[in-house]
Amino acid sequence: MKIAMLGSGNVATFLSKSLIQAGHPVTQVWSRNPNNAIALALEIGSDSITNISSILADTDIVIIAVNDDGIENVASQIPKNPNQLILHTSGTTSLQVLENYTSNCGVLYPLQTFSKQDNVDFSVVPLCLEGSNPGVLTQIKTLAGQLSNNINEVNSQQRALLHISAVFACNFTNHLYHIAQKILEDAGLNFDLLHPLIQQTNDKVMLNKPSEVQTGPGKRNDEQTMLKHLAILQAQPNWQDLYQKLSQNIVKIHHLS
Amino acid sequence: MKIAMLGSGNVATFLSKSLIQAGHPVTQVWSRNPNNAIALALEIGSDSITNISSILADTDIVIIAVNDDGIENVASQIPKNPNQLILHTSGTTSLQVLENYTSNCGVLYPLQTFSKQDNVDFSVVPLCLEGSNPGVLTQIKTLAGQLSNNINEVNSQQRALLHISAVFACNFTNHLYHIAQKILEDAGLNFDLLHPLIQQTNDKVMLNKPSEVQTGPGKRNDEQTMLKHLAILQAQPNWQDLYQKLSQNIVKIHHLS
Repeated sequence: MKIAMLGSGNVATFLSKSLIQAGHPVTQVWSRNPNNAIALALEIGSDSITNISSILADTDIVIIAVNDDGIENVASQIPKNPNQLILHTSGTTSLQVLENYTSNCGVLYPLQTFSKQDNVDFSVVPLCLEGSNPGVLTQIKTLAGQLSNNINEVNSQQRALLHISAVFACNFTNHLYHIAQKILEDAGLNFDLLHPLIQQTNDKVMLNKPSEVQTGPGKRNDEQTMLKHLAILQAQPNWQDLYQKLSQNIVKIHHLS
Repeated sequence: MKIAMLGSGNVATFLSKSLIQAGHPVTQVWSRNPNNAIALALEIGSDSITNISSILADTDIVIIAVNDDGIENVASQIPKNPNQLILHTSGTTSLQVLENYTSNCGVLYPLQTFSKQDNVDFSVVPLCLEGSNPGVLTQIKTLAGQLSNNINEVNSQQRALLHISAVFACNFTNHLYHIAQKILEDAGLNFDLLHPLIQQTNDKVMLNKPSEVQTGPGKRNDEQTMLKHLAILQAQPNWQDLYQKLSQNIVKIHHLS
């Protein structure tokens, strides 16, 4: 398969490398920012293009891995080519957005967080797939099966919910770690102190459902501790507000239902 | 050292086992609920007592491992004995609460989450220590050093902040996993799908500061995606509210500061 990659962010980068490793050359890279396209193209030994109209006619698959906001605009600029498969990699964008431009399209959504500094084992990343018709879906499954052992057929509605759940479990979790980091730094303590606790919290939900392993003042409905914590947090109204909301939810689930 | 354990919850249980393993017999167990005291005493081969006044005079250390709300009341019932060291294990209760009853007291706060079903390697649990005087602190350090390789001297104010940071990084994180679990179950999907993402989120903050590895719609200020997610969550006002607050905080930190 010859592939054109539209996008140069973390998903585009990790996906390109995984595709190349699986024997599928990424021959062209485009990005809204031409310098980023050049940088990724150099990194993976590809050509960079400045105009989406320069996508070669013999390209088998065009992958749109740009911000959700930009997908429709990028799709509208791809030269019409009925033999080409067009995929996007977004959690929340419906397949319909591509179907407005081609009948030969699908979704390959990698359910993972990618940062430049990461090592990601792509073979265990859940790939969530959707196709505009059964033939296309089979084609996408074959490709995805060469990249990962964790292949899932998921429709647009389920994919959006999966994306929301990922925002809670990953993005918001990291933000809570960030708040913890700031609280410790302000107290002259090192974030590393929390490593064993974070590791244990992680290990628990690999073996149990999170609903079954909740701990802490909210779980115990330990009002005195929660009130003390809220008082200590009063100089940080955002954190105080989050503390209150999250605690109230935990108390509600474990004591009032 | 002969130890009396007041409390029978998860901290009392794991700490008792670790103490016994280190060669310090837990000779007596008390709990507000006598049946729980009996259960733990049977589990660790100790005696259970119904009245705190039954603590033996030759007990070297009395450990109060009850809910924060109950510490003062329990401390007030311990028979006066100037040779005995009294410790509590709470994150948020100041040492002062014990100093009202004895000059020979301290804190041994294990910064970890303990659930009945867990395997916890106590040797890597950060133990946060405080003593009512330098001699007592040395004594607590010696004991703690036999339980864990991660010993930290932390005053009452720092300890409370450490506890709050732990609530964010562990208890609230697990609650976010719980929300993710519910969202997936409602969509007919399995929570296991999120395992690789959760693992990667964990692995990242073992190697990087959370402030440096934030990802997601908020980090990208991807307004279209955030609005779509909020719309999808409208049937769950609590989750919608949390989504909005957490996203706003992330946008503010990474785009408006």
